[in-house]
Amino acid sequence: MVVIMRPDAGRQDIDGVIERIRGYGMDVHVSQGKERTIIGIIGDEREIDFDSIAALPGVDRAMPILRPYKYVSRHVHPENRTVRVDGVTIGRDLVFMAGPCSVEEEDTTLRIAEQVQAAGAQIFRGGAYKPRTSPWSFQGLREKGLEILSRVKAKTGMPICTEIMDTADIDVVGRHTDIYQVGMRNMRNYSLLAALGKTRKPVLLKRGDSAKLEEWLAAADYIIRNGNENIILCERGIRTFEEHVRNTLPLASVPALKERTHLPVLVDPSHGTGHARLVPAMCRAAVAAGADGLLLECHPDPEHAVSDGAQSITPQALSDLMPVLQRIANAIGREL
Amino acid sequence: MVVIMRPDAGRQDIDGVIERIRGYGMDVHVSQGKERTIIGIIGDEREIDFDSIAALPGVDRAMPILRPYKYVSRHVHPENRTVRVDGVTIGRDLVFMAGPCSVEEEDTTLRIAEQVQAAGAQIFRGGAYKPRTSPWSFQGLREKGLEILSRVKAKTGMPICTEIMDTADIDVVGRHTDIYQVGMRNMRNYSLLAALGKTRKPVLLKRGDSAKLEEWLAAADYIIRNGNENIILCERGIRTFEEHVRNTLPLASVPALKERTHLPVLVDPSHGTGHARLVPAMCRAAVAAGADGLLLECHPDPEHAVSDGAQSITPQALSDLMPVLQRIANAIGREL
Amino acid sequence: MVVIMRPDAGRQDIDGVIERIRGYGMDVHVSQGKERTIIGIIGDEREIDFDSIAALPGVDRAMPILRPYKYVSRHVHPENRTVRVDGVTIGRDLVFMAGPCSVEEEDTTLRIAEQVQAAGAQIFRGGAYKPRTSPWSFQGLREKGLEILSRVKAKTGMPICTEIMDTADIDVVGRHTDIYQVGMRNMRNYSLLAALGKTRKPVLLKRGDSAKLEEWLAAADYIIRNGNENIILCERGIRTFEEHVRNTLPLASVPALKERTHLPVLVDPSHGTGHARLVPAMCRAAVAAGADGLLLECHPDPEHAVSDGAQSITPQALSDLMPVLQRIANAIGREL
Amino acid sequence: MVVIMRPDAGRQDIDGVIERIRGYGMDVHVSQGKERTIIGIIGDEREIDFDSIAALPGVDRAMPILRPYKYVSRHVHPENRTVRVDGVTIGRDLVFMAGPCSVEEEDTTLRIAEQVQAAGAQIFRGGAYKPRTSPWSFQGLREKGLEILSRVKAKTGMPICTEIMDTADIDVVGRHTDIYQVGMRNMRNYSLLAALGKTRKPVLLKRGDSAKLEEWLAAADYIIRNGNENIILCERGIRTFEEHVRNTLPLASVPALKERTHLPVLVDPSHGTGHARLVPAMCRAAVAAGADGLLLECHPDPEHAVSDGAQSITPQALSDLMPVLQRIANAIGREL
Repeated sequence: MVVIMRPDAGRQDIDGVIERIRGYGMDVHVSQGKERTIIGIIGDEREIDFDSIAALPGVDRAMPILRPYKYVSRHVHPENRTVRVDGVTIGRDLVFMAGPCSVEEEDTTLRIAEQVQAAGAQIFRGGAYKPRTSPWSFQGLREKGLEILSRVKAKTGMPICTEIMDTADIDVVGRHTDIYQVGMRNMRNYSLLAALGKTRKPVLLKRGDSAKLEEWLAAADYIIRNGNENIILCERGIRTFEEHVRNTLPLASVPALKERTHLPVLVDPSHGTGHARLVPAMCRAAVAAGADGLLLECHPDPEHAVSDGAQSITPQALSDLMPVLQRIANAIGREL
Repeated sequence: MVVIMRPDAGRQDIDGVIERIRGYGMDVHVSQGKERTIIGIIGDEREIDFDSIAALPGVDRAMPILRPYKYVSRHVHPENRTVRVDGVTIGRDLVFMAGPCSVEEEDTTLRIAEQVQAAGAQIFRGGAYKPRTSPWSFQGLREKGLEILSRVKAKTGMPICTEIMDTADIDVVGRHTDIYQVGMRNMRNYSLLAALGKTRKPVLLKRGDSAKLEEWLAAADYIIRNGNENIILCERGIRTFEEHVRNTLPLASVPALKERTHLPVLVDPSHGTGHARLVPAMCRAAVAAGADGLLLECHPDPEHAVSDGAQSITPQALSDLMPVLQRIANAIGREL
Repeated sequence: MVVIMRPDAGRQDIDGVIERIRGYGMDVHVSQGKERTIIGIIGDEREIDFDSIAALPGVDRAMPILRPYKYVSRHVHPENRTVRVDGVTIGRDLVFMAGPCSVEEEDTTLRIAEQVQAAGAQIFRGGAYKPRTSPWSFQGLREKGLEILSRVKAKTGMPICTEIMDTADIDVVGRHTDIYQVGMRNMRNYSLLAALGKTRKPVLLKRGDSAKLEEWLAAADYIIRNGNENIILCERGIRTFEEHVRNTLPLASVPALKERTHLPVLVDPSHGTGHARLVPAMCRAAVAAGADGLLLECHPDPEHAVSDGAQSITPQALSDLMPVLQRIANAIGREL
Repeated sequence: MVVIMRPDAGRQDIDGVIERIRGYGMDVHVSQGKERTIIGIIGDEREIDFDSIAALPGVDRAMPILRPYKYVSRHVHPENRTVRVDGVTIGRDLVFMAGPCSVEEEDTTLRIAEQVQAAGAQIFRGGAYKPRTSPWSFQGLREKGLEILSRVKAKTGMPICTEIMDTADIDVVGRHTDIYQVGMRNMRNYSLLAALGKTRKPVLLKRGDSAKLEEWLAAADYIIRNGNENIILCERGIRTFEEHVRNTLPLASVPALKERTHLPVLVDPSHGTGHARLVPAMCRAAVAAGADGLLLECHPDPEHAVSDGAQSITPQALSDLMPVLQRIANAIGREL
């Protein structure tokens, strides 16, 4: 932490800060500037309460130096980590998870799965428990939906990724899924993250729509700290003033995450744009930026999808897109 | 819903939209404009999947007309609703909930409670379960903290407001609190909201830092729809590009909520600014804007607070502020 | 400036930074932390190019300590500065500038002026040159509008505040106005600000809708540095994800500006909300927060206003509001 | 425009809206919904004042249907438009404009130009007039810088792109540049845009950091409406809550602009990230998303750049990147 004193801070204020920091068993370096005094802390500042330092008399600002996460840091584990799900190695293979927003009736769901598999997707995604803004909207098929997912897996062999919304559902969802998906609304549901940390199944952790990278990585630390290292990050866009898209998709987070963490990073251009006609360009851009794969809403008949039709591409569109994505992957030297 | 067709939409596209809407058992009005055709829906659009209409060929945009909430709407219940907690009538009395961010050791906590009560606060707030961005930060005293709160209530008579983070904790927290506080991180944790809807205890629902008013009110509808009408809204600021504050506090939400809903509306200037020295001005502004009360972090010794010291005002500052706030309440004609 | 080195920065990197800073004739303090080295700069960092330091090898972040402004700083000039316009002392009196968004035909404009004056406004505002998002919208009466403003002043005695959009118009606008208004779109038009700095007429500088406080104050420094100290700041809201308002009005900027600068601070609740029915509450809140006055769009017949009718209150509404605002000013101890 | 009445609007309110719209010589369609009445306007709503309709009694919201721009619309001119600058055809060729943020001394500037040309850039960019947040920062070499640019063009044959900040400088800058660059701070400086519309030189119009796509396109309409059709759009990122980047770069604007307009679209990953180490990934992503080219800050010695060193890549990095970008362009079927 660096503590910047106010221009009018006196000797007593400065001594007060130093004394407080030493009280935590740490040492300080004091820089007497022309207009300001700056105090640096030597030691692991994560053990210090940041706010109580900022509240001391004469302090202008206290700025953290260390990140709020440890275990997910590339500094701690420099090599890329991969997550294996059946035959797929996420973080090495270029991975495509595709399927409908919501699990639909069994026939439709199976048909979609076969189509996205034929188009090249390795993992099937679909929501049985749906977090919806309005309690008046469709909330998902719930347990019935999970059973449909299991039957789809039995018939196609595709591993399953589906959303978990409540610690109480960890067992039932875990019996039917290969990857727990934590949606953006629950990225800061730390009770859920800690509970998932006690399982060993992979967790796909989406970015909260108002989360800074540091907060997202700290959320991942809640999982890993409880023992589960199988984490996949998924950028899905943030909320800004832009209206022509459902979310603003900031692809610079892909290389920025790769610097900070060893975890695999996927991108969800469906939620990241909200419009099917923008999805192919964002798939291409995500792969070009270095993403480890894509999470896609895909439906053969988007205008009859139970939810999120506007942002679902068709299996045909996915199939057309796939060779382009592979050429881009080649162009940037990614091994497939 | 209003469906706006693209300028190049043909007769077949328009008929497709009309047919789909009629398939939901609703009727349409078609306006043939100079450049565009507009289709209006007659009926309760909340039963229609918005996205699937937007995905139809030839559609440019589909704009909702109805709000995503019903029960919390002032249209449904025109009179203000009040929430009674012991002798306090929230929504009628100007209410002050004050206390430390985190519950501290019993002596300290009791001392703070006595001081904020003397300063004029009617309800004591303090967190036993703390949602912290970093898993490496202090996570609260948990059950021990709840017991301290109960003892504070026994000694001071002040009702308690404390945070709930997990459906699994509803019983234990409920044994010690008078008001469940749902923090901004859990505003979209719909499992938690639905479960709280099955209790009868008041719920203070903070705004998510990226939530639009409509989403916040729809979140409240998750509670009321499950049977619990005792809801208090609390504006605590949103995340924007501003850096000089922890959050941007948009006080126009107070009159805007009052138009839309009959629920009481509090303001939290502590999180809404992040800096104790900005808190008094925002307390004054919130009362002047018509808020039903304030939620405040208050600590006699902010630089020794376990958390959030930078935004805690002292009981002395609260005591000094109180007569000013009452004069403002008088100035705007609020009965105290 | 504080330079934070990367955890893997070597001795050579650290020496490179030190050498560069010394090349600017300044000295450094080096703090060797457990994980990181931190380098503080002793001297006026405003003379150093921030970015070139951040680009040095081994540097993680370079954080500014000094603000990008000098002359508007309260540190430089601790007492409040007032701006006199005819008989009004802005920064001391509680000031109301009111009038239509656009100057209208002479009869209407004069009638509005008389009404807002009767309601208690001291200064008349109205735009002759209108910056409109679309080139297809009404662009203002231009010179004809300026002449109407002069005649309104002649008849009512009210000083005039009107917008300036182009350095080429400084003379013509200056012949008819008492205060140059710089709108939010031109807050970063530094050529215009520098040119206004060479006049001696007061400048009302609105906040840009994406400007941080520091940037806004630095923009004011462009004016003062060129010799004109008569500056009035006006908070008019920022662009965020909120949709129910035209802009999000962050009133915490009022006390935050008062800490940083000696300049008077007004608030514009018309643009700050975009809806006439939210304006009275935000007027009350702005005065309660300590603003030095209000800039208001006011029209007797908002639904026939040439522009911005939706956010204009009537002179009657202003008249009803005035005694409430004065009671609030009394409540917070402001002398009127 | 679609006008949505409040649920409690009466017959008289509805008639008032209809009468007003008819007063503009337009017709209406009225849809009587279950909860609300909706009124659609038939005619060119751009001629109606939007706000005055919204201010009518009983109106809840008035939503525009038409865009605030006309001439830049793809609807008006369906084919892509190209802009020719010497031998380069922007909008057809994949274009690279590269150079230092600020024009430097002649030797350095010439050396950079030769290096970026060797790396494959076709157009040289560099700022002589620099809009800087702080008046205390370096403001550019101004006329001297323009002369250096002319000499660089004479020696290398590269066309020049440099920034214009003031209508008063149009002639002097025009004598030395091939493309006028309008920076993000001046995107809403409509006086400048209108004046540039009266020249025939190409204008590169950067997106304002708080501009919606519609507003940006309307700004371009200010240029084209005055007669200059040679416009190039450049996405350079928007201001959001993200802190790890200087701006958030929303690449979905590339395909979204391509839908709405026939103008060429470039991307500036230097300002779009602020960090040289994120630039190559965003160059790849921009080309993959379908951008017509890149605007890049490039300096052989970023840590000695006069400004913006942190976001400048080296000519070597550009040279290494170029074949990758060309492979990506091939992958998406772009002809080079």
